[in-house]
Amino acid sequence: ESYKKQESANPLDPYSAEPTRHPALQINSLKPFNAEPPASLLSDNYITPSVVFFKRNHLPVPRLDPETYRLEIEGLPGGVVSLSLSELKSRFPKHTITATLQCAGNRRSEMNKVKQVKGLNWGIAAIGNATWSGARLRDVLLYYGFGPETAAKAKHVQFEGLDRDVTGTAYGASIPLNKAVSEEGDVLLAYEMNGEDVPPDHGYPVRVLVPGVVGARSVKWLGKIVVSNEESKSHWQQNDYKGFSPGTDWDTVDFKSAPAIQELPIQSAITHPAEGTSVDLSDKEVTVKGYAWSGGGREVVRVDVSIDGGKTWHVARLCTSDKGQHPAPPPPPGRAWSWKLWEIDIPIPHKAQELEIVCKAVDSSYNTQPDTVAPIWNLRGVLSNAWHRVKVKVSE
Amino acid sequence: ESYKKQESANPLDPYSAEPTRHPALQINSLKPFNAEPPASLLSDNYITPSVVFFKRNHLPVPRLDPETYRLEIEGLPGGVVSLSLSELKSRFPKHTITATLQCAGNRRSEMNKVKQVKGLNWGIAAIGNATWSGARLRDVLLYYGFGPETAAKAKHVQFEGLDRDVTGTAYGASIPLNKAVSEEGDVLLAYEMNGEDVPPDHGYPVRVLVPGVVGARSVKWLGKIVVSNEESKSHWQQNDYKGFSPGTDWDTVDFKSAPAIQELPIQSAITHPAEGTSVDLSDKEVTVKGYAWSGGGREVVRVDVSIDGGKTWHVARLCTSDKGQHPAPPPPPGRAWSWKLWEIDIPIPHKAQELEIVCKAVDSSYNTQPDTVAPIWNLRGVLSNAWHRVKVKVSE
Ligand SMILES: [Mo]
Ligand SMILES: [Mo]
Repeated sequence: ESYKKQESANPLDPYSAEPTRHPALQINSLKPFNAEPPASLLSDNYITPSVVFFKRNHLPVPRLDPETYRLEIEGLPGGVVSLSLSELKSRFPKHTITATLQCAGNRRSEMNKVKQVKGLNWGIAAIGNATWSGARLRDVLLYYGFGPETAAKAKHVQFEGLDRDVTGTAYGASIPLNKAVSEEGDVLLAYEMNGEDVPPDHGYPVRVLVPGVVGARSVKWLGKIVVSNEESKSHWQQNDYKGFSPGTDWDTVDFKSAPAIQELPIQSAITHPAEGTSVDLSDKEVTVKGYAWSGGGREVVRVDVSIDGGKTWHVARLCTSDKGQHPAPPPPPGRAWSWKLWEIDIPIPHKAQELEIVCKAVDSSYNTQPDTVAPIWNLRGVLSNAWHRVKVKVSE
Repeated sequence: ESYKKQESANPLDPYSAEPTRHPALQINSLKPFNAEPPASLLSDNYITPSVVFFKRNHLPVPRLDPETYRLEIEGLPGGVVSLSLSELKSRFPKHTITATLQCAGNRRSEMNKVKQVKGLNWGIAAIGNATWSGARLRDVLLYYGFGPETAAKAKHVQFEGLDRDVTGTAYGASIPLNKAVSEEGDVLLAYEMNGEDVPPDHGYPVRVLVPGVVGARSVKWLGKIVVSNEESKSHWQQNDYKGFSPGTDWDTVDFKSAPAIQELPIQSAITHPAEGTSVDLSDKEVTVKGYAWSGGGREVVRVDVSIDGGKTWHVARLCTSDKGQHPAPPPPPGRAWSWKLWEIDIPIPHKAQELEIVCKAVDSSYNTQPDTVAPIWNLRGVLSNAWHRVKVKVSE
């Protein structure tokens, strides 16, 4: 509660209008607000409740009036379009997808243990799965004249948020044109999250939702769309959210040499049991739970779990719904936007005193996770997807 | 030469009509013929010459007459189509793509060192890059009536070869419908390889070329195409060319539980220097060369090279053409079908007696290779894409 008081003490603080947050969230940064739920909560629900879905804000939350909200669209043959919220909702069919969003920095804390990186010290819970409803970006662009004429020149679709820093610079990002306009891309201009208005922390009244792609491109509080032959010129597209070799440091880094992160690689992590806890030998088995997801619509096809540090492996059960619910129908190829939760009971060896639990996932292109963190370490601490390891004691 | 004599000794041998092969090839199996070039040859040419392009035959090479050759197409509204070679060439525009093909078993020999697997003992050269010309499968299917009616029911496109075993069973495979019909899929019915007729070992007169996908789906000596709601029922689609957990053995394997391999994961290997050779300390630097490629049209964006077993890493130069040639224009996003060759000169540390050279690549979805072989070991020895390691001595 202390931070709320701090806010209300200074009405000139750009962070004075921040929404109320759920007390279970673990705060990585207060201004801007960045927080994740306790990891154990993640595997409790196939659809992550909005209140505990990780919050990743780069700037203060803008409080927008749905009556005066306008979305501008530039770069189409007819000139600039200005669209109200009710026009967006009434003019275009409402589509709903279930999709996982993951922060580029999810699991950054494991990279920090290898060597200090620059960025928020995320644990394993800067990821969540939600249902999103809104207009398809494709439908909107086609309605306002996108066609072969524009396709011949344009290569990117840029998004600009209505969140701004003190100098007036807005958050921005872009995605490749093909992802934006293809039927299979499923990019939404979302106005609902989990069946309700998108909450303020997640982009009310309208955010982009780019499934299969790093969270940073799903621009919140969307103010402007620009169809362009260039990527967004924003800091976050050009000089951030890129991957580098472990040998590259801040003196040698050339941000132009690496592509902006779009599709993310295969990922998985253990949500239960927690590091440092104990399992009881008399239980005979240890139940291990977690999540797995891959970018680019690649479906998770297998999760391997070890309790001996990676020497022997067991195949986990994959779940696409909550317990007792029907599993979700299989997604079309290349459009697996949702994570899978997984679970397995593994017999505890008689003489074990400690278990090193490890998980690794495989996606439909048979991509796998790297074994260790150090060789994928990078100065921004992004793309941290090595095998996840949890040590627990065995008590008798 | 001994095997040629053996063939001619028995005209009833189904392998009596095999083509002549280049003497540099290293033979893994004579009947059917399976062979790869010396690894050092691979990085000599951005376009692999056809004569040394790896040969991967499942059955005897059928010797087909271009005058009587017919391609059948089933599963389209108009009924069965029968197409001659000259019709295929004249009726459809000729498209040319440069694409890498890799055998699912490339680098299987490294898995065999962990524990015996079932399959041909390929080194690192069951991969090659070639230009392929032919009709686009998309154009052919649309010409013969593919449209929304078929798309609503069909999910796969099956291919059947004209190569048959003694019982009359043909080689067969299938790919997802979307890959076959999308504009970006670039699937060809290829009748030229590197500017000449497709050679007999590579599928004369017509083969499928599915870029970004495991070689096994690029069916050679193509006899039939079937648009279907089911995958190919062939052995190679159903009970082979699938990946499993290292804990799965021949007693427990359930082939239905894993998807057929389509897109391959990120791959790279060192072609120079060779294992066990020496580098000269007086040269001050060691030149390391190799290849890197990823499936699904994902572009290779970086190759990291280490000479200390993976403790420190250097970024290699990537090449998309032969020395002195202009680099290839960058491919459209998601359509990077060709490998990249890479090269780097690394200073030899003063007191080094041995170098453990290691490479690992990164693709445009920031997928990386796993560190070690054992955790991706699988009973069929496919998908072997751990870091490649070569040890060389340092001589003074
Ligand atoms: Mo992020
Ligand atoms: Mo293969």
